[in-house]
Amino acid sequence: MTTTDSLQFNSDHQLQHLLSIEGLDQRLLTEIMDNAESFASLANQPVKKYPILRGKTVVNLFFENSTRTRTTFELAAKRLSADVINMNIATSATSKGESLLDTIRNLEAMHVDMFVIRHALSGAAHFIAQHVAPGISVINAGDGNHAHPTQALLDMFTIRRHKNDFSSLRIAIIGDILHSRVARSQIQALSILGAKEIRVIAPKTLLPIEVNALGVSVSHTLEEGLQDIDVVIMLRLQKERMSGALLPSESEYFNCFGLTQEKLAIAKPDAIVMHPGPINRGVEISSEVADGPQSVILQQVSYGIAIRMAIMSLILQPPGRHHT
Amino acid sequence: MTTTDSLQFNSDHQLQHLLSIEGLDQRLLTEIMDNAESFASLANQPVKKYPILRGKTVVNLFFENSTRTRTTFELAAKRLSADVINMNIATSATSKGESLLDTIRNLEAMHVDMFVIRHALSGAAHFIAQHVAPGISVINAGDGNHAHPTQALLDMFTIRRHKNDFSSLRIAIIGDILHSRVARSQIQALSILGAKEIRVIAPKTLLPIEVNALGVSVSHTLEEGLQDIDVVIMLRLQKERMSGALLPSESEYFNCFGLTQEKLAIAKPDAIVMHPGPINRGVEISSEVADGPQSVILQQVSYGIAIRMAIMSLILQPPGRHHT
Amino acid sequence: MTTTDSLQFNSDHQLQHLLSIEGLDQRLLTEIMDNAESFASLANQPVKKYPILRGKTVVNLFFENSTRTRTTFELAAKRLSADVINMNIATSATSKGESLLDTIRNLEAMHVDMFVIRHALSGAAHFIAQHVAPGISVINAGDGNHAHPTQALLDMFTIRRHKNDFSSLRIAIIGDILHSRVARSQIQALSILGAKEIRVIAPKTLLPIEVNALGVSVSHTLEEGLQDIDVVIMLRLQKERMSGALLPSESEYFNCFGLTQEKLAIAKPDAIVMHPGPINRGVEISSEVADGPQSVILQQVSYGIAIRMAIMSLILQPPGRHHT
Repeated sequence: MTTTDSLQFNSDHQLQHLLSIEGLDQRLLTEIMDNAESFASLANQPVKKYPILRGKTVVNLFFENSTRTRTTFELAAKRLSADVINMNIATSATSKGESLLDTIRNLEAMHVDMFVIRHALSGAAHFIAQHVAPGISVINAGDGNHAHPTQALLDMFTIRRHKNDFSSLRIAIIGDILHSRVARSQIQALSILGAKEIRVIAPKTLLPIEVNALGVSVSHTLEEGLQDIDVVIMLRLQKERMSGALLPSESEYFNCFGLTQEKLAIAKPDAIVMHPGPINRGVEISSEVADGPQSVILQQVSYGIAIRMAIMSLILQPPGRHHT
Repeated sequence: MTTTDSLQFNSDHQLQHLLSIEGLDQRLLTEIMDNAESFASLANQPVKKYPILRGKTVVNLFFENSTRTRTTFELAAKRLSADVINMNIATSATSKGESLLDTIRNLEAMHVDMFVIRHALSGAAHFIAQHVAPGISVINAGDGNHAHPTQALLDMFTIRRHKNDFSSLRIAIIGDILHSRVARSQIQALSILGAKEIRVIAPKTLLPIEVNALGVSVSHTLEEGLQDIDVVIMLRLQKERMSGALLPSESEYFNCFGLTQEKLAIAKPDAIVMHPGPINRGVEISSEVADGPQSVILQQVSYGIAIRMAIMSLILQPPGRHHT
Repeated sequence: MTTTDSLQFNSDHQLQHLLSIEGLDQRLLTEIMDNAESFASLANQPVKKYPILRGKTVVNLFFENSTRTRTTFELAAKRLSADVINMNIATSATSKGESLLDTIRNLEAMHVDMFVIRHALSGAAHFIAQHVAPGISVINAGDGNHAHPTQALLDMFTIRRHKNDFSSLRIAIIGDILHSRVARSQIQALSILGAKEIRVIAPKTLLPIEVNALGVSVSHTLEEGLQDIDVVIMLRLQKERMSGALLPSESEYFNCFGLTQEKLAIAKPDAIVMHPGPINRGVEISSEVADGPQSVILQQVSYGIAIRMAIMSLILQPPGRHHT
C-alpha cells in the first residue's frame, strides 16, 4: 500500500490529493494559509467570484449526509467558477447498484477534475485516491474516525489570524478525542506547525489507548487542563458514534467537560474558543461562551470557505501550471 | 419588536428585506414593477442572462417543500448570474441538529448575500430578518398564513400589464381567504395601489373574523360577488390546511365557489382570471376557465420570474450602489 | 397523432426534439457524430467550458430516478454554459399535485429552453413534445421500454471511433432485448448507418415476438452468435423489469449468456465490448472482460458527454441560427 505521504503528492512534488494532514510539512501548511489569506481578505468584496477554476468540474461525492460541509465545498468551488455536481449516495444504494470503484470510474470518464469525498468509513478517501486516474484529485471531507484535514487547516488558519506565532502557544483540545477525526487532524497540524504544547482534556473512556504516542499532554479535568491555555478547542459530542456505556448523561458530561464562562476563566484572559460545529449548546459548551467575546466559532466558518478555496486552487491550478 | 415597516428598509431608506407588502408604499411597488418590465420584455431573448448579481450568493432556505416556488427563485437568481445554493431543511432535522438561528449564523459566516425563506410558521422570515447580520437580505417566499409578497407583486404586475390603471378596477378574490397568505398580501398591495374596490368572495367559515378591518367588501356567492368585476383572483384550496369541519366536500365547494365559464360570464366581459397555482382543476376552477381566453394564469408564472429578478436586483444592487 | 418523424423536426427541417432514433437519417446521425468529435477532442483540455448555450435554461425533469444519466446531461449542459435546473418528480407526487401537462406548462412559462425527460412510461417524452410550446425542445433520456436515443448515439459514436466504417461490421447485441429501450434504439441506429449485420443473442423469453420485423438475425447461444462479430454490445440485466418466471437465476443466466473471456474469444480478435452501464459484474459480464483490453465501456461514458453536448448544441443553437 502506498503511504499517505507519497500518495498526496504527484511526481513534481505538488499536492495532488488532500487526504490527511499526516505527511504534509510546515512549508506547505504555511503556503495554504498564505493562499487563504487573500481569499479571506476578499470575502467582503461585493463580487466574490474568481475565474481560477473556470471549466473545471468538482464532484461532491457524499456517502454520509452533511449539508453544512457540502455547502462549504460547493460555495468554495462555485466562487472559483468551477462547475459543481452534488451527489449524495447512501451506502445502501451503492452496494445495491454498482461498486464504489465503478461509480468513481464512471465519473472519471466524464472528465471531472476533483472529488470531494465524505464517507463513514476510515480510509475511504485514501482508497479512492489510490485508484483514480492520473490528473484527478481527491479531497477528504471527513472519513470515519480517521481525518478531516480541511477542518484542521481552517482551524490552524483561525489560530494564526488571532495568535500569529504557533511556537509560543498552548492549545487544549477538549472532548471525545477517541472518536474525533477532527482532533486527530488538529493534533497533527499543530505538531507540524510547532505548537508549544498540545493538551487533550477528556475522560479516560474518550481517549485513545495510544494517547501517549500522539505527542500530547493529557488532563482529565477542565480545572487542571485549562491553566495557561491560549487556544481552547472544543469537540462536538458525536452522540451517534458512542455506545451508551461510555458516558452517563449529557448533563453529567456538561458538568464535567462542558465549557462555561467560569471554566473558561481558568485559561489565559485572551484565550480564544473554537468549535468545529454544529455546536450542542448546553452539552459541550454553554451558550454564554459560544456567543461570547472569546468565541471565534463563526470566524472558523468564514475561514473555512477561504481555506477550501485555497486548497482547491493550489491542487487544480498550482503555481507555474497556469492555463487560459 | 421592530415593526415590519422599519425592518424592511436600511438606514438609507433602501429596501433591505422583502418580508411583507405591509409597510411598502405606492412608489416602491411601482418601481419594482417598472424594473420587472425590462426583465419581462427580455424574457424571449435568446440569451437570458444578466451579470447584475455576478459574485453574489443566494441561498434558497426551504423549510417547507415547494419545488415550484424554489425553481422560480433559482431561475431568477441564476439568470442574474448569482451563485445559488438550495437547502431543503425539514423542520425535524433542524430541531435535531442545531437551532434555526445557528443555521442562519453559519450561512452568514459563509458570506452569503441573500436568504430566500419558505417556512410553515408565520413570522419565520421576519424572525430571521431581525437577526441576520447587516448587509444580508431576506426574501419571504411564504410564511405560514402570513404573507407571500413576491406572489402579490407578480399578481399586481400581471394586472397592470392587462388593465393599466388600478384606480378604476374592481377586483374579486375568491376562496379560502382565512388561510391564505397570498390573499393577505394581495389585499395589502391592491390597497396601496389604490384599487377602486377589493371584494372577497368566500363562505363565512373561510373568512377571517376581522374581515371588515381589511378594507374590503364581502360577498358570499359568486353570483352576487362577480358583478362588475374586472379582475378575478382565484385562490388555491389548501386542503392540507383545513380541518375537516370547515368544508363539506370538494364537489360541493366547486358547486358553490368553483369558477366556471357560466359564473365568469357574470363578471365584466373583459375580466381576466388569475390563480397563484398549482390549480386544482374541478375544485376551485374548471379546466375550461383555467385554459380559456380570459385566463392569465401562465402569464403570472412568466411574470413571476421577472418580478423576482426585479426584487433581487433592487435589493442586492440598488440604484446608486453599483460595483464592478 | 403526429408521427415521430415529423414531430422531431421543425418547419425548417431542423432537429427540434430528440425522442427516438426512428425517423432520423444517416446524414443527421453523421452530423451529430461529427459535432461530437470536436467536443470529444476537447475533453482533456484544462478548460472544458463553451459559451454556446449561455443564457439558455435546461431542465432535467426526471420522473424515474437515475443519478448517473442525470449527471451526464447536467455536465453536458453546464459545460455548454447553460443554466441547469434539476427536478426529480416521483410519479406519485405529480398525480397528487398537478398533472404532468400543468407542470410542463408552468416550466414553459418560466421560459426554459429544453426539457430532458426520463420517465418509466413509454411515450412520455413524445407526449410532452407534442404539447410543448413552439421553440421549446425535448430530449428523451429514456422512456419505459421504448427508446433511449442519446445512449444509442453515444454507442454509434464509440463504434465509429474504433471501427470507422459501419458497412463492414457485424454487431451482436446480447441480453434482454425484450425489455431494453437501449437495444431498440441501437438496432434502429445501426440499421440507418448501414451495418452489415445486426445480430441479437438472447433466450427466447427475452426476445420480442415480432423480432423478425426488426431486420436482425437471431441467435440463442453465445457460442454460435459471437462468431465473426466485430462489436459486442452487452445489455444490462434489468432485474426490476422482469417477472420472476422469465429467468431461473443470475448464475444460470451468467452460465448461458454472461460474457467471459473464453466466450469473447469466439468473436473476432479485435472485437470491442460495450455496455450501457451500470454493469452487473458476474451477471451479464465477467469483471475480466469488463476491465479487459477489448472493453470500451468507460469510453462510452466519456463519449456520452460529447454526444449530449453535440445534440444540445445542434438543437438549441443550430448552424445558421447564431445569436450573441
